[in-house]
Amino acid sequence: MRGVKAVLFDVFGTVVDWRGSLIAELGAFGARRGIAADWAGLVDAWRGAYQPSMQRVRSGALPWTVLDDLHRASLDELIARFAIAGLDDADRAWMVAGWHRLKPWPDTVAGLDALKQRAIIGTLSNGNVALLVNLAKAGGMAWDVVFGADIFGHYKPDPETYLGACRLLRLAPHEVMLAAAHNSDLAAARALGLRTGFIPRPGEYGPAQARDLRAEAAWDIVAEDIPRLAAAVASG
Amino acid sequence: MRGVKAVLFDVFGTVVDWRGSLIAELGAFGARRGIAADWAGLVDAWRGAYQPSMQRVRSGALPWTVLDDLHRASLDELIARFAIAGLDDADRAWMVAGWHRLKPWPDTVAGLDALKQRAIIGTLSNGNVALLVNLAKAGGMAWDVVFGADIFGHYKPDPETYLGACRLLRLAPHEVMLAAAHNSDLAAARALGLRTGFIPRPGEYGPAQARDLRAEAAWDIVAEDIPRLAAAVASG
Repeated sequence: MRGVKAVLFDVFGTVVDWRGSLIAELGAFGARRGIAADWAGLVDAWRGAYQPSMQRVRSGALPWTVLDDLHRASLDELIARFAIAGLDDADRAWMVAGWHRLKPWPDTVAGLDALKQRAIIGTLSNGNVALLVNLAKAGGMAWDVVFGADIFGHYKPDPETYLGACRLLRLAPHEVMLAAAHNSDLAAARALGLRTGFIPRPGEYGPAQARDLRAEAAWDIVAEDIPRLAAAVASG
Repeated sequence: MRGVKAVLFDVFGTVVDWRGSLIAELGAFGARRGIAADWAGLVDAWRGAYQPSMQRVRSGALPWTVLDDLHRASLDELIARFAIAGLDDADRAWMVAGWHRLKPWPDTVAGLDALKQRAIIGTLSNGNVALLVNLAKAGGMAWDVVFGADIFGHYKPDPETYLGACRLLRLAPHEVMLAAAHNSDLAAARALGLRTGFIPRPGEYGPAQARDLRAEAAWDIVAEDIPRLAAAVASG
């Protein structure tokens, strides 16, 4: 990709496996504590609350609220809905911080390390900066720069996020690529002039995943994983 | 330092040698191009314009302007004052980008690598994000997070910078340390509740340096270099 100086990554689903990580962690927690629950169902419902909760911020119904706090509010609702007993405030805070401990996909770290030799690599995530920094330290993701939604006070796909990152990098949109496993994120970035790289993550939503199984537009790069994305950027 | 979760570094003078780097680079440039000039004088005058130019932004006389652009404006004035001929727009842009190529002090990279094992490490600089990212990539500084003044729209010592970094890290001020070679920067951070670490850089301003030769208050840590600061943080 001639002229791409920075590649910014969506994080949840694109570089880390939120569903597998949370189900494993909560399942172990439940076993340890003797709390039987549909942990996989809870995790899917928790992620299901993600877009609606951000939409309340985007629409102005809620003032600016970071993702950690949205996660806590939706968790409290879901614990009641799933009728899970025995979870105190410290337990819930620990569960919310589980989003700071998500594991990278197996190809992530090697792919980012390769790409870092050729371009600025960073996040462009709806996660907040603290969450993203904790993820990176625990998972070994050597970002050059961490852009979280709280830097911009906006959630993707609000244009303030994509364009704000370009502004802080002092790069034109066509010099910046968004890499994501989600077609809608890439469509928003392309509409603002950014380059686009699609990496399918067909297991992100579990075995029944019905969305984002393939590229739904002619993105600049479509690559099976991050190392192959890095190779495509390098060959451009 | 019990409870310090993040150490944020001032950059110019504290982690990189702006004066030595720029004098070496501009001297070589002048020799290559056959332009005789008082390059050391120009560099000192350029840095001399730093605080006054930011003060125009802090006071509201200038709207928000990133450091790269302040550097360009002061360079243009100084080239005229020093009567240096033959520098076109591309030359001047390259000279301004010299601030993106400053070399770390010899102890910097090893010290940061050690500290990174114990705490979040980041920048808290009046440089803009793009400048800081370029410095880090070229110099091998493995920051966990890069805070530049353009994230906050304020220059240190405005409180929006120190407190903005704490807010984005979701840490209380007493969990964050500012590390700097400048007593005034540390005084501003301490007034807001941050921890403080002083690293003298007695050569920062050249052989005639008369300021910041020693700690002027009882900072939480006073260390000869960054590895010793890292050891002090770890032993806390």
